[in-house]
Amino acid sequence: MTGAATPTDVVVALDVGGTGMKCALVRPDGTVAHTERHPTDAGRGASAVVETVLTVAEGLTERARRAGLTPVACGVVIPGVVDEAAGVAVWSANVGFRDVPLRELVRARTGLPTVLGHDVRAGGLAEARLGAGRGAGHVLFVAIGTGIAATHVVDGVAATGAHGAAGEIGHILVRPGGPRCGCGRPGCLEAVASASAVARRYAELTDAGGPPVTAAGVAERAAAGEPLAGRVWQEAVEALADGLATGQALFDVTTVVLGGGLAQAGPRLFDPLRVALKERLTFHREPRLVPAALGDEAGCLGAALLALDARPALDDLSTLDGVPALNDLETQ
Amino acid sequence: MTGAATPTDVVVALDVGGTGMKCALVRPDGTVAHTERHPTDAGRGASAVVETVLTVAEGLTERARRAGLTPVACGVVIPGVVDEAAGVAVWSANVGFRDVPLRELVRARTGLPTVLGHDVRAGGLAEARLGAGRGAGHVLFVAIGTGIAATHVVDGVAATGAHGAAGEIGHILVRPGGPRCGCGRPGCLEAVASASAVARRYAELTDAGGPPVTAAGVAERAAAGEPLAGRVWQEAVEALADGLATGQALFDVTTVVLGGGLAQAGPRLFDPLRVALKERLTFHREPRLVPAALGDEAGCLGAALLALDARPALDDLSTLDGVPALNDLETQ
Repeated sequence: MTGAATPTDVVVALDVGGTGMKCALVRPDGTVAHTERHPTDAGRGASAVVETVLTVAEGLTERARRAGLTPVACGVVIPGVVDEAAGVAVWSANVGFRDVPLRELVRARTGLPTVLGHDVRAGGLAEARLGAGRGAGHVLFVAIGTGIAATHVVDGVAATGAHGAAGEIGHILVRPGGPRCGCGRPGCLEAVASASAVARRYAELTDAGGPPVTAAGVAERAAAGEPLAGRVWQEAVEALADGLATGQALFDVTTVVLGGGLAQAGPRLFDPLRVALKERLTFHREPRLVPAALGDEAGCLGAALLALDARPALDDLSTLDGVPALNDLETQ
Repeated sequence: MTGAATPTDVVVALDVGGTGMKCALVRPDGTVAHTERHPTDAGRGASAVVETVLTVAEGLTERARRAGLTPVACGVVIPGVVDEAAGVAVWSANVGFRDVPLRELVRARTGLPTVLGHDVRAGGLAEARLGAGRGAGHVLFVAIGTGIAATHVVDGVAATGAHGAAGEIGHILVRPGGPRCGCGRPGCLEAVASASAVARRYAELTDAGGPPVTAAGVAERAAAGEPLAGRVWQEAVEALADGLATGQALFDVTTVVLGGGLAQAGPRLFDPLRVALKERLTFHREPRLVPAALGDEAGCLGAALLALDARPALDDLSTLDGVPALNDLETQ
């Protein structure tokens, strides 16, 4: 029976972020049976956050069984540096994790075979397979929010790199001598074109009192014809185009999917960005440039995909470690 | 018997460049049974070059049989744009090819199942599997000569991209507003740090009569303490470090292998480049930076690897298309 999905199978999926957790029960065909959200409240410290993750994962597992579903595996994704092979949250500033063996903790609590992954990589995987990149063999997913990160997905598999650190497009040089990045180097893409960089740059130039203007606000003012906002927005667009052209030169994809907060600017971002990108492509084939389709549930769906992908191997484990017995208990 | 190598099996491998062809008979374990070189003389036009390729491939096939070896497949690699799936040389300026169905032509002439590939990608594959990247799972091979190109190899497989154009690291932006590249854009890595860019920049700054100074000459003068040469060389090193740091941010490899003419500068390149690269790496893991080990035979060995990799599928074909009968003839 190993690997054969039954109509009631689901995986438990958790996307753990700095402020909230997006959670779901997902069927093997990628459809969602149930979703719920919980606050992370990272300020409580790592131990408290881990306990919340475990409680939520356990609760979802039990909820599935009460609904007559069969939880077969669990996928958890987190930000920061993740050792996917070891199942360890190496370093996640947003949630305060440092060397937390999260995979084993979740497995022990839920009784389910568990996979640990990286949130942006999982989100990119979901966009490539279920979202805006569906049907394209070669996809680059770029999330533009507080930071900028990418996932390169070929034939439904996301590249991890040798140390789980592939896809750091936010830290490629686009403006030598430019604004200093959080990573310590000047001129990184993230330091010029992330949502926070746009807001910061506008604040520097206007030096206005009052509430800070967000990147979306800058885009709106630019569209309304305010010259300074127009200049800041265009600088970000040009830098993004430089970064995407570099990505295309190296990866040669068919489709670039943009997600994250900045992508919600819609045509205000995509229209000038398509023009700027096209200017930079010479010998390259021009990729389709499309907005992400899954919204903020991409990471959670990606967590589900990671668990589903690992099922054939995990199923063997679950047969060994007594999950069928737990299932028997549940049906009493 | 499909796929089972016998002790006399060899593949016929050709690396076709603008000036010369490097050719070999290679055993399934990667050892070389025979090598030969021929001039390409590209100025004769595409038809004449194709005829030379076919004659050389046929000659190598016959030579193998005369030596009691069994040619089982043929691998041909060329520069430029290659449609590997269709087996077509789409556009190779160096050798004058434009939409040449080279795979089918070689197959028809030699009677051997044939694979067509890209020269730099094949060379990178050979360096990753047989050369300086041997044993490393994630390798970035960068060839720095007249141009700059890269191959990303993970677990012995080279990334091709959606259109066969992946790895164009020569055309990533490193110096906005910098020297114009052959591709038409300003500030590409290739326009600042290729061997020809280094020679050109030095000539511009010195404006001296006499024979032009090559990049190797600039490196030598820099090492001898000539300030202008030192400045030009350091500019190239800094740009290369920027390009490699971008590569590491996106690919996260364990080993970067540098080949091509510029890499022959040895410690004059590698010593300052390691320092400059290290300065740029913050969160990234630092890759090993090593010179290529296979010299100018990497492309030819890569052609052999492509043919060997395709053998399981090709063997089925060769059984169908009568190669065993040809072998029987040869033993008369």
